[in-house]
Amino acid sequence: MGTPFNAVLTTAEMSAVFNDNAIAHAMLRFEEALAHAQAAEGMIPLEAANAIASCCRAELYDFSAIIVESRTAGSLAIPLIKALTRMVRENNEPAAGFVHWGSTSQDVIDTALVLATRDALVLIERDLDKLIASLLELAERHAATPVLARTLLQPAQVISFGLKITGWAAPLVRSRAQLGQLAARALTLQLGGAVGTLSIMEEHGEKIAQRVARTLELGVPPAPWHTQRDEWIRLGLEVAVLVGSLGKIAIDVALMCQAEVGELAEPTYNGRGGSSAMPHKKNPVSVMIALAAAQRTPHRAAAILTAMAQQHERGLGNWQAECAEWPELFSSAHGALSALAHAMPGLQINAARMRANIDAQSGLVFSEAATILLASHIGRDRAHALLEELARDVIAIDRPLEAAMQAHLATDTALQKAVDAEQLHRCFDVDGAAEHSAKLARARIAQLRAALHREPSCREK
Amino acid sequence: MGTPFNAVLTTAEMSAVFNDNAIAHAMLRFEEALAHAQAAEGMIPLEAANAIASCCRAELYDFSAIIVESRTAGSLAIPLIKALTRMVRENNEPAAGFVHWGSTSQDVIDTALVLATRDALVLIERDLDKLIASLLELAERHAATPVLARTLLQPAQVISFGLKITGWAAPLVRSRAQLGQLAARALTLQLGGAVGTLSIMEEHGEKIAQRVARTLELGVPPAPWHTQRDEWIRLGLEVAVLVGSLGKIAIDVALMCQAEVGELAEPTYNGRGGSSAMPHKKNPVSVMIALAAAQRTPHRAAAILTAMAQQHERGLGNWQAECAEWPELFSSAHGALSALAHAMPGLQINAARMRANIDAQSGLVFSEAATILLASHIGRDRAHALLEELARDVIAIDRPLEAAMQAHLATDTALQKAVDAEQLHRCFDVDGAAEHSAKLARARIAQLRAALHREPSCREK
Amino acid sequence: MGTPFNAVLTTAEMSAVFNDNAIAHAMLRFEEALAHAQAAEGMIPLEAANAIASCCRAELYDFSAIIVESRTAGSLAIPLIKALTRMVRENNEPAAGFVHWGSTSQDVIDTALVLATRDALVLIERDLDKLIASLLELAERHAATPVLARTLLQPAQVISFGLKITGWAAPLVRSRAQLGQLAARALTLQLGGAVGTLSIMEEHGEKIAQRVARTLELGVPPAPWHTQRDEWIRLGLEVAVLVGSLGKIAIDVALMCQAEVGELAEPTYNGRGGSSAMPHKKNPVSVMIALAAAQRTPHRAAAILTAMAQQHERGLGNWQAECAEWPELFSSAHGALSALAHAMPGLQINAARMRANIDAQSGLVFSEAATILLASHIGRDRAHALLEELARDVIAIDRPLEAAMQAHLATDTALQKAVDAEQLHRCFDVDGAAEHSAKLARARIAQLRAALHREPSCREK
Amino acid sequence: MGTPFNAVLTTAEMSAVFNDNAIAHAMLRFEEALAHAQAAEGMIPLEAANAIASCCRAELYDFSAIIVESRTAGSLAIPLIKALTRMVRENNEPAAGFVHWGSTSQDVIDTALVLATRDALVLIERDLDKLIASLLELAERHAATPVLARTLLQPAQVISFGLKITGWAAPLVRSRAQLGQLAARALTLQLGGAVGTLSIMEEHGEKIAQRVARTLELGVPPAPWHTQRDEWIRLGLEVAVLVGSLGKIAIDVALMCQAEVGELAEPTYNGRGGSSAMPHKKNPVSVMIALAAAQRTPHRAAAILTAMAQQHERGLGNWQAECAEWPELFSSAHGALSALAHAMPGLQINAARMRANIDAQSGLVFSEAATILLASHIGRDRAHALLEELARDVIAIDRPLEAAMQAHLATDTALQKAVDAEQLHRCFDVDGAAEHSAKLARARIAQLRAALHREPSCREK
Repeated sequence: MGTPFNAVLTTAEMSAVFNDNAIAHAMLRFEEALAHAQAAEGMIPLEAANAIASCCRAELYDFSAIIVESRTAGSLAIPLIKALTRMVRENNEPAAGFVHWGSTSQDVIDTALVLATRDALVLIERDLDKLIASLLELAERHAATPVLARTLLQPAQVISFGLKITGWAAPLVRSRAQLGQLAARALTLQLGGAVGTLSIMEEHGEKIAQRVARTLELGVPPAPWHTQRDEWIRLGLEVAVLVGSLGKIAIDVALMCQAEVGELAEPTYNGRGGSSAMPHKKNPVSVMIALAAAQRTPHRAAAILTAMAQQHERGLGNWQAECAEWPELFSSAHGALSALAHAMPGLQINAARMRANIDAQSGLVFSEAATILLASHIGRDRAHALLEELARDVIAIDRPLEAAMQAHLATDTALQKAVDAEQLHRCFDVDGAAEHSAKLARARIAQLRAALHREPSCREK
Repeated sequence: MGTPFNAVLTTAEMSAVFNDNAIAHAMLRFEEALAHAQAAEGMIPLEAANAIASCCRAELYDFSAIIVESRTAGSLAIPLIKALTRMVRENNEPAAGFVHWGSTSQDVIDTALVLATRDALVLIERDLDKLIASLLELAERHAATPVLARTLLQPAQVISFGLKITGWAAPLVRSRAQLGQLAARALTLQLGGAVGTLSIMEEHGEKIAQRVARTLELGVPPAPWHTQRDEWIRLGLEVAVLVGSLGKIAIDVALMCQAEVGELAEPTYNGRGGSSAMPHKKNPVSVMIALAAAQRTPHRAAAILTAMAQQHERGLGNWQAECAEWPELFSSAHGALSALAHAMPGLQINAARMRANIDAQSGLVFSEAATILLASHIGRDRAHALLEELARDVIAIDRPLEAAMQAHLATDTALQKAVDAEQLHRCFDVDGAAEHSAKLARARIAQLRAALHREPSCREK
Repeated sequence: MGTPFNAVLTTAEMSAVFNDNAIAHAMLRFEEALAHAQAAEGMIPLEAANAIASCCRAELYDFSAIIVESRTAGSLAIPLIKALTRMVRENNEPAAGFVHWGSTSQDVIDTALVLATRDALVLIERDLDKLIASLLELAERHAATPVLARTLLQPAQVISFGLKITGWAAPLVRSRAQLGQLAARALTLQLGGAVGTLSIMEEHGEKIAQRVARTLELGVPPAPWHTQRDEWIRLGLEVAVLVGSLGKIAIDVALMCQAEVGELAEPTYNGRGGSSAMPHKKNPVSVMIALAAAQRTPHRAAAILTAMAQQHERGLGNWQAECAEWPELFSSAHGALSALAHAMPGLQINAARMRANIDAQSGLVFSEAATILLASHIGRDRAHALLEELARDVIAIDRPLEAAMQAHLATDTALQKAVDAEQLHRCFDVDGAAEHSAKLARARIAQLRAALHREPSCREK
Repeated sequence: MGTPFNAVLTTAEMSAVFNDNAIAHAMLRFEEALAHAQAAEGMIPLEAANAIASCCRAELYDFSAIIVESRTAGSLAIPLIKALTRMVRENNEPAAGFVHWGSTSQDVIDTALVLATRDALVLIERDLDKLIASLLELAERHAATPVLARTLLQPAQVISFGLKITGWAAPLVRSRAQLGQLAARALTLQLGGAVGTLSIMEEHGEKIAQRVARTLELGVPPAPWHTQRDEWIRLGLEVAVLVGSLGKIAIDVALMCQAEVGELAEPTYNGRGGSSAMPHKKNPVSVMIALAAAQRTPHRAAAILTAMAQQHERGLGNWQAECAEWPELFSSAHGALSALAHAMPGLQINAARMRANIDAQSGLVFSEAATILLASHIGRDRAHALLEELARDVIAIDRPLEAAMQAHLATDTALQKAVDAEQLHRCFDVDGAAEHSAKLARARIAQLRAALHREPSCREK
């Protein structure tokens, strides 16, 4: 339903792809292409096709009245085709008989949804490309910037912020490729006539389908897919996967934007992220939009999956439910994508705070490294036990773990034979720890760039 | 998102309850009530309150521009309050400083949603009352009309159609009562200020909340519910339960409308349920809308439940997701409810076909009754085995079960001592079987009418 | 499916409520009660009832073999009743004919699920009571402990930790009351026979139902609810609401346990929350379990709602799906509840860190209070603008907001006439800010205790 | 949770893939492979690796005790690795220090889940192959068998049953190919150590990963995928798509099995589809299982999508939720698949009843064909109007549409010039109508067979 609460979470561009006008336009494009194809195959007179085509302009119709009628008819197509037929009849009476010839409601509605979806994917890919580009740039810039890795929301070890960002980018690159491949299979013409056999068009069926598809620049499916919608559903699910990957970025950024963490901040522009009550607030509204999308989208995915059990040759309720759910996938996805694509280039990165948060851990995040160093000399059990004991002291008497270990080493002459202070010191080297990540990050950035290069865009397909 | 696919499945009335204009209006009602309440408590000058109130008219604002800004601000409230403040300032400069005083975005948005929801419930209840009334009338009329009971989509035994309808009506009567009770608890003012404590309003907080609530005719909650939304969620879930009960009616009607069953047909009006390809089609479009709602709504319920884990004193993403999902519950529910309420009074009931479908079962649906009759004489095992054997014959040689049993009885002198042909015949009496159901149906109709009478409507609360 | 991944997230106690053995036991209790009731009403011989009862002991059957057969039969009841009948026949041949007399698979399965659910609710309520008690105690203890309120994951203002905890507890108290009321309506006998009319039992039906219900200590529903399951679904949804409220607690605790926030820590016991790699890790495993539950449960709620559209007099697939989903609601709920009930009493609360996190905000979280103070003298616009300017300095030159404001006041003689330094100072009083919350907290604790006292437990019902 | 209600809806085979024992076994296989790989790279002594390997046998451990501990530890891995270490220490003290060296809980759990999933896919593919084979065989056999096509649950036109079946088979063939491709990408080793960098293994990390992967016959991913699980989620979603396609088959079969339709019946075996109350019942239990799966699975898909927003380097609650949800996808899928694969070869097809159901439509289902025939002569409007009028008569006076039209033709001399009785008669030819479908069916069978041939099985990959 069109509510302001939905509007906040999507974009005007995406709303325009699926609104009344766009769908009316797409439905009429289908009818026009069908008439022309049938004329070209000699099924209907050319003059009739021209007369029909001249009436296939959305601005000629009051689509809001058509929607009112569609509630009674149970289908958008029925009143639209009535209105089109009426209009054609006024212009060219005999042509009226050839409107929508041999086709059915589902043909025009499904194909219109395919056309709108193609437009939606152009927006998705455009902003996906932007987001990927800015992430890879950030990853490069911060390839070696040390940051806490956190597991189960607790500090774990040190990685680099660039490596973390490659983790954000990689699934987006994969989604981009998947969307391209699945779109190529799913963005196909629906043309099956009353029950999917195009029987009325007899031997012309296949050729007409090819002509209509060519005109609309759509693929021709191996068979009409009216109640066998798996390829279409896969495309929708990939949008849901993309939103899941955006949600992962968003939750990480949101957590790093917390004042107590302070490692990131969303860019602040005029009017962005303020509060109606508190002058000091800087709310992370881009990630908010992405998080809302990540919460809502799985339920849309479930809804289109639920709708798959479509009865016989046209579903009762499930097809209609799927059509209504479908645009919401893109609505949320583009809201999230454009919000992140807009925020990422200006993301405020506080590398000093990242390091301070590491330092605040008093060396505890190097405990595994230190354990491993000692383990090869005193066995892992003793090493682990020693580290646990020293770790308690870190908290109890606020002494950094390295200091505690060096003090221990100074008194343990046996250990001194195996480990020297310098070796021990290297275990606690923040930049050293990040350097390993930096190597990984740089290799992955190169891989991702190569993958992007290899994969043509959706739009070129 | 506002798409024609959603529009087909809801009503213009319900769309109007949650559209941009309605929400803007509700938000401004909140601001007006707040200003007046604060003036009454001496927190702000009466003149300021009057100046604010005079600007709280939705038609003064370009809400579509406000929505555009809200995408950057991350909240509808921020740009609306800015616009309101600007408007107040133009009229009465000092009053501008008192707009939205001590309140926060969530207060005005949640309360606006509460106001809209109250309007939505009026529509729901109105059509729920209509639907219940027509179902109870049908149930009375067909209290003794025999119809097949079917289990696992197979013929089982004979009941009455009236009894079946009481099964449809009873959950609706319960939902009506539940909606009333939950609405009384959930339709409460949200007023907590920045973090839910109304601290800025100091000792006036409670009184101001009471005044605002009184003006808006809302309840006062035990505490602001900004991130503790369980009462609100319960109300939403009850709408989902209602839709589930409508879905049950719809699936039964849809199945009984199948040509091969032919027991029911939706009323046909001009333009209702036709086909763009097939002149003979009579599509059950009312149940189609209800089935679509029943498929979509559980996912909305899941979405609002998912959104419950709202962080700290205002959620990041989850609150916003919930607000966007919420109206969809009512959108689907009212689409379904109004479709069924419209169709039921004119439902075409083919009692002859109901009986024919029973007869086509050749008495098999009375096999349990016959088993029981015999079992008391020859033991259930033998009775069951005998019936299974005779049942095979029914299908194999197309002989009615009663005939087969009477033939068996005629040759089984032992059995004749215990069972006579007349007793056996009564086991196969269609009307007799329905009569037991009729008694139950009449008792339940009386119970349901009494329950309706007991329970005041939502609207009176 | 029984997997170790599910096992980690629930409790052994709850697993035992719904496992094979428990369900077999409950099904046999139903059959025993039915036989006795029928004997008492003179429908079957007392001796037969006794023979049946003596075989209604779960340990007599190989339930795993029965499950294997149930996959073919499509129902647990069919092979169990066969096995029971066989066993009875061996003991008392004629009694075998009276097993399950006039009943149907759904009667025994639904009633068994009701019995198991009653046991599940006892566990839920027990741990809900524990959790509420420990939360109220914590809330009392920390009624005045200052803590940051955070909105959209950013610092907002100061409240008290006790007030925050009352927000956690209040929905639990409401869920407890709701569960009690809904259980009273939903924990009713299912007894309808083949198609819900008990027609085989003729005039005895109602009395037998009452007797069986009394034996099993269940309510008698207004009508068999085999395909009208709204009261049952409401109970399941309330469990989902409870899990949502637990999720809210868990996310707040998880965020406050972050090392960078450091306000809370889960109690550490032997083996709790460690890491296989990192000796220093203290993972918040209780909230982890609750968060997992909060993520999974909404989908279970959606599943049982989806299953409501049960066809005719017994659903094909949907009833079976609901039965399988149902126990998962309780599995997650009890996992979450028992984890939190176990963790909360030992929750480590770092009040010093709470205050330090407030102090780290350099007074910014008092900006609304300061704005309000100034606004009454210089108008809100000027006050807001001044605060925004000073807030920038706070960050830019790391000067606390109060210092900046006092410096400003010292130079603004006009302002000095309206505001003195002491008044200004009070705006920044951390304890003063918490005191307002403390009053609210204490009032709410009293309300919640009163509500608990008023409401008898589920178990007493 | 392991309940008998789940057990009815899945298979013993699939339960065994994910049960405690299987997961313990898989986890130990990982630890063994890791130790051997590290020995081969010289990171740990060969003797230690051998000692570890000798303890990596599931039968050595009490996994139920480990599960109890895992509830406290928050992870299955921690107590298992403790137990393994204890066991190794008893055998070879120094080797104990090398257990799980440099790895982390998530490595072993994710990899175990991958190994189990590979086994699950073998079962899925085996039964998918069976089901496809039997569908294609049925499609061939019934390529020209006329059957009603039905849209919105109403009779539409005539197609062939074989064509309908190709519609069922085609998505299964696509799912088979997709599963193969996605499995190749998703069934990869998880090995990242504490935070995904394998930093402890230094320069050996990559080689060790390759060795472990080779031993376990898994792929090596481009990067550890601990919190970037898109490839894994895609695989899970494809299982959900497969279940959706099975649901489509099941709903069609269920509807065609209705007594009033009578076109299909499930094979009846001993104990299959009986009723505990009614001797005559033949319940379609295979489609029941598939329908239950189709209702439940979308919610599992939503759950794993919801879990994608995993925080930082290991999620809190969401990873654990995903692991628990994952096996349920396969549990439902295999229940459905094996039920249908078992039922389809013996499906009882009543071609006579299919024709009778067509005939019962009195020619109405040929109204589009007749309209088209007339339209080219008298214009579509007049043709449509005439057909609508005659269609009313069909129902009103029970006269077949062809008879009505021939009667009309006999009186309309103008029309006789354009249309002769023979042409008109051909419009109503049932077999002629099916023949068009037969051609399509045969072409699609050939395409599907070719696709199957092209695509190697999952198992070969």
